[in-house]
Amino acid sequence: MKVSVVGATAYTSRELIKILARHPEAEIVHLGGRREEQPRISEVFTVLRGICELNVVGLRVADAPEKPDVAFFTLPHGLSQKFVPEYLQAGVRCIDFSADYRFSDLALYEEWYVKHEDPANVARAVYGMPELFREEIAGADLVANPGCYPTAAILGLAPLIGEGLIERGGIIVDAKSGISGKGNKPQPDSMFCECNEDVQAYRVAAHRHEPEMEHVLSKLGDGDVDITFVPHLVPMDRGILSTIYVRLTREGAPGMLQGLFEDTYADEPFVRVCPAGIQPRTKDVALTNYCDIAVTARPGGTVVVTSAIDNLMKGAASQAVQNMNVMVGLEETAGLF
Amino acid sequence: MKVSVVGATAYTSRELIKILARHPEAEIVHLGGRREEQPRISEVFTVLRGICELNVVGLRVADAPEKPDVAFFTLPHGLSQKFVPEYLQAGVRCIDFSADYRFSDLALYEEWYVKHEDPANVARAVYGMPELFREEIAGADLVANPGCYPTAAILGLAPLIGEGLIERGGIIVDAKSGISGKGNKPQPDSMFCECNEDVQAYRVAAHRHEPEMEHVLSKLGDGDVDITFVPHLVPMDRGILSTIYVRLTREGAPGMLQGLFEDTYADEPFVRVCPAGIQPRTKDVALTNYCDIAVTARPGGTVVVTSAIDNLMKGAASQAVQNMNVMVGLEETAGLF
Amino acid sequence: MKVSVVGATAYTSRELIKILARHPEAEIVHLGGRREEQPRISEVFTVLRGICELNVVGLRVADAPEKPDVAFFTLPHGLSQKFVPEYLQAGVRCIDFSADYRFSDLALYEEWYVKHEDPANVARAVYGMPELFREEIAGADLVANPGCYPTAAILGLAPLIGEGLIERGGIIVDAKSGISGKGNKPQPDSMFCECNEDVQAYRVAAHRHEPEMEHVLSKLGDGDVDITFVPHLVPMDRGILSTIYVRLTREGAPGMLQGLFEDTYADEPFVRVCPAGIQPRTKDVALTNYCDIAVTARPGGTVVVTSAIDNLMKGAASQAVQNMNVMVGLEETAGLF
Amino acid sequence: MKVSVVGATAYTSRELIKILARHPEAEIVHLGGRREEQPRISEVFTVLRGICELNVVGLRVADAPEKPDVAFFTLPHGLSQKFVPEYLQAGVRCIDFSADYRFSDLALYEEWYVKHEDPANVARAVYGMPELFREEIAGADLVANPGCYPTAAILGLAPLIGEGLIERGGIIVDAKSGISGKGNKPQPDSMFCECNEDVQAYRVAAHRHEPEMEHVLSKLGDGDVDITFVPHLVPMDRGILSTIYVRLTREGAPGMLQGLFEDTYADEPFVRVCPAGIQPRTKDVALTNYCDIAVTARPGGTVVVTSAIDNLMKGAASQAVQNMNVMVGLEETAGLF
Repeated sequence: MKVSVVGATAYTSRELIKILARHPEAEIVHLGGRREEQPRISEVFTVLRGICELNVVGLRVADAPEKPDVAFFTLPHGLSQKFVPEYLQAGVRCIDFSADYRFSDLALYEEWYVKHEDPANVARAVYGMPELFREEIAGADLVANPGCYPTAAILGLAPLIGEGLIERGGIIVDAKSGISGKGNKPQPDSMFCECNEDVQAYRVAAHRHEPEMEHVLSKLGDGDVDITFVPHLVPMDRGILSTIYVRLTREGAPGMLQGLFEDTYADEPFVRVCPAGIQPRTKDVALTNYCDIAVTARPGGTVVVTSAIDNLMKGAASQAVQNMNVMVGLEETAGLF
Repeated sequence: MKVSVVGATAYTSRELIKILARHPEAEIVHLGGRREEQPRISEVFTVLRGICELNVVGLRVADAPEKPDVAFFTLPHGLSQKFVPEYLQAGVRCIDFSADYRFSDLALYEEWYVKHEDPANVARAVYGMPELFREEIAGADLVANPGCYPTAAILGLAPLIGEGLIERGGIIVDAKSGISGKGNKPQPDSMFCECNEDVQAYRVAAHRHEPEMEHVLSKLGDGDVDITFVPHLVPMDRGILSTIYVRLTREGAPGMLQGLFEDTYADEPFVRVCPAGIQPRTKDVALTNYCDIAVTARPGGTVVVTSAIDNLMKGAASQAVQNMNVMVGLEETAGLF
Repeated sequence: MKVSVVGATAYTSRELIKILARHPEAEIVHLGGRREEQPRISEVFTVLRGICELNVVGLRVADAPEKPDVAFFTLPHGLSQKFVPEYLQAGVRCIDFSADYRFSDLALYEEWYVKHEDPANVARAVYGMPELFREEIAGADLVANPGCYPTAAILGLAPLIGEGLIERGGIIVDAKSGISGKGNKPQPDSMFCECNEDVQAYRVAAHRHEPEMEHVLSKLGDGDVDITFVPHLVPMDRGILSTIYVRLTREGAPGMLQGLFEDTYADEPFVRVCPAGIQPRTKDVALTNYCDIAVTARPGGTVVVTSAIDNLMKGAASQAVQNMNVMVGLEETAGLF
Repeated sequence: MKVSVVGATAYTSRELIKILARHPEAEIVHLGGRREEQPRISEVFTVLRGICELNVVGLRVADAPEKPDVAFFTLPHGLSQKFVPEYLQAGVRCIDFSADYRFSDLALYEEWYVKHEDPANVARAVYGMPELFREEIAGADLVANPGCYPTAAILGLAPLIGEGLIERGGIIVDAKSGISGKGNKPQPDSMFCECNEDVQAYRVAAHRHEPEMEHVLSKLGDGDVDITFVPHLVPMDRGILSTIYVRLTREGAPGMLQGLFEDTYADEPFVRVCPAGIQPRTKDVALTNYCDIAVTARPGGTVVVTSAIDNLMKGAASQAVQNMNVMVGLEETAGLF
């Protein structure tokens, strides 16, 4: 199976290339980028020396030396929608890392992002979280790969939200992310000496992943979900820990929570529910496709869910490969761990 | 003014000794510890070479080469109460870093800690947060230095809680602490390779600083305060960032919050309210006695307060020196920054 | 192929188990340890949840539920030699991570370590660096897996030392290691708050890897090699960068060095010689079996070689698996990257 | 005493301002910079809120609201020499952080830097290392503040080089620096995700601090000193550890080294010679003006000197204040620790 990475010089692409280079069924035939000098990818990311030595050529489907079966788009939002249509037209199945195809509600997208130039394809796109939408993904030719923060939050809330066990308003998602979440463009707040020995909140209750979480979770139950989302940067490369605070309804009982989470994810290859009393650690999921989750009830009705992923992996690159596996009918775990 | 540090080999003591060694009015006359070999403190903490070269002798007031005017106790809870009485008896003013004298409600203390052996002195102790209890501290001879997490949380909540602007139940305090909060005893969860590149929650809604916050804040308004407190460890030496989630009552209006915080702390030398739109950073308060605070209102009534301190400084050693300054009538900022 | 890990609770074992669990030909049948409660390995290392769920049983070959074909010993020096003989006797091929079988010169071993209890098997042991001793390893049933520091240093010096291009005395090896090199026993100098924001040298010119380097390199040329080795701890989990200083002899010319290194390692799957002007980074080799090397000549005859490995991987676990592949005739790269 | 900081938005300036704001004799009257919007310095460095609230105005002496007695220049090399002359002309004593006035050998400067536009003042400049040139500094009106790497290396070598105890050729200086040494301009190699969990060498034997070390040390003995200098970046904010390798001459005996170092620095307030067997740690000198040094002899004639400083403090800002104290006749330790 031939694959293309469109936007090859992002951190998420580096991880994606590492996975695809070792994937038993995938063969990278095209790396697309915007650098005029068309460097070898191993010059951009020296970690790839000996692993992938392709040159980064143009972004268009016509730039691909061989026609791919699947294309991954790691372009910024607003830019993906300029390239996805021509790949779809050419019969290439597309997996987009940007927000461009995540919102079936176009107005909500445009409120938080930009005017959409490809509304027609929004309708056919599937939200790429296999644990929730496996069947739709299997038949899709356009998958919107979830945001990193939404992945951790949605997997942590899904067992509760669909069951009417918690109040759908007043949900708090307090997330702690490694610095790679800022991307690889040099800027003051991604410098070592600014991030190291520091923790700070940013875009308090104003981050674009807040409406994404609400949008997806609202589909899982009957009625709107309201979330206060505060992301923080912590001094590490990778990982997101989301600490989620919800309140039980009368239907919810503390004693049922551990079993509910274990049952929900019993057959999922990449969600590990922690034994009671054990907390997830970002270190345990680093460089893997796992999401580790724990649930704790406090006397009085507050429930604390903690959910850990690697933001570049389950939060981006490896979840995309999981989606590819499902889309084309491979073993879902192929090339992943 | 002669001072004693009882429990000299803790991380908080190392910071305390650094401050006291440079304090314009203090002279360290006694370091008390439990190590039989009575090492020089600069052998225990090489950073102190040339700064303090005293030997660590016994813990008792009789072990002090000269009688101190003020004694700092950095012993674990349960142990402080065995030594404080004899110092008080000898006319030494005491500042205790443990929880032993923080709870005027003895039953609450004993529920979370141990049986108290010195209940008589609990009644005369003052909670050592000058921003809230400056006058009581000035006259006190026994001050209970606050816990690190409570310091950040209480300073962040005090402007709201006393005014009836927020709901007193359902408060969330999500705290991120550097690893020095674990102390300097080697154990698995304070090892570099366990903490680095990791974030995790611990003692979820079961940490002993939760009742301390509730106990102090309940005194500031009319009625009990209920807090869900979840501490996290993040890979840095020092610093606590508390992200606090509260809900406005009908009396509370988002537009008044920035002004309220600025007014409350206008005359405080060690609380800096961030300009609107700026978030506190633990890096900005590291190695200082500052607490930096920001307040942000979200449409719908949720308010997010973020509060940053250095856990070893405003959360322990420098706040203790601030208390000493107030107790003995020195300039409150003497020897501090 | 059935494998055993004898000493399963070391950091190196954790990495080894991760590799073996995904190795296309290996099946872990036995984890040996010293913990009486015989925990599941995923309780000791939560990162292994869902990857390996075996219990840690006894260390003896008789404790193995099934007889292994290959056994890895990750025990401390002095202890390996107590168990290796019985595994060999039972026809199990052995790969030992300790220093016990690295020195064909028994007196040298005993000078730096302890009295040897199994001298008979020392003679049949092969030093497990496939780049230098591939053929001997292929036929061996006892392989001494190299030390982490020697691996980086020897691979950096081998192209020069065998050719008589450099002076064999006065070699400097200045190594910088991540903290995992200290192992996973909690002790003061492996605590986060002691290691973070710190660099220090330790065991200056007195580390036991110095004679190991000299011993192996002396075999590669005609005459003794003399090395001054100074290891340092730097605040990161993994990785060793060795900066090696040598002086050219009259036979050595700066202009030939880059080509010499490229030629030496042209066919090696796990040594990457950096293009001229590019320096190796520990980050590029983290979690891989690669050794990245650069060589730079300074006017005046000094040559600087820099060599980077992951101390837990090429410096321990993955090199051991590479040795296993060679020993049993598998593809040398099987299960590795 | 009124002081000016010319180039106020560098990391070194931030540290300098923190020191000067608390210095008992200094008053900052002028912050000069190149930002058109003339921000308050506490907006550039939020850590300075409440500590210094001056605006950053122009760089010229005429831009100073009040005429300073002493001016600190933290501008890049090549730029300092454009401003220093007018300050000198106006009778302001100058301390320059750049390389512009460090080389009495103008040709050497121009070989490594740029054409010099102010050669006249080079001759009157004194190299600002009080431990070596205290008397000259006392009378100087232009002091060239040393580079960070040279500070650590020269203090480590000075006791040996002046005495003819070591060979003056073949000296190795292997330095490990925190990332703040790269300055505060965002660029790929100062980003958190590039530096964290990484060690790498850079400008191998081609860094401009190599000739500075050689230039200064050559003056201390009779004959040229030849140094191979290799700097490395390690993942921490601050600190330099230099590991220095030299060879004893026939005059040098291992047994005399510890005493020699202790005697040389016996009266120095800011150099701490470690007791035999103890190694310096960058953590012990962080945020101080100390240089900690150890010396170790290896059988065979190699001597290893390790020398630790804070690159922003003794390597820049606090050493500059030490120079100021000496220049104007204050207590040398005033405002420092």
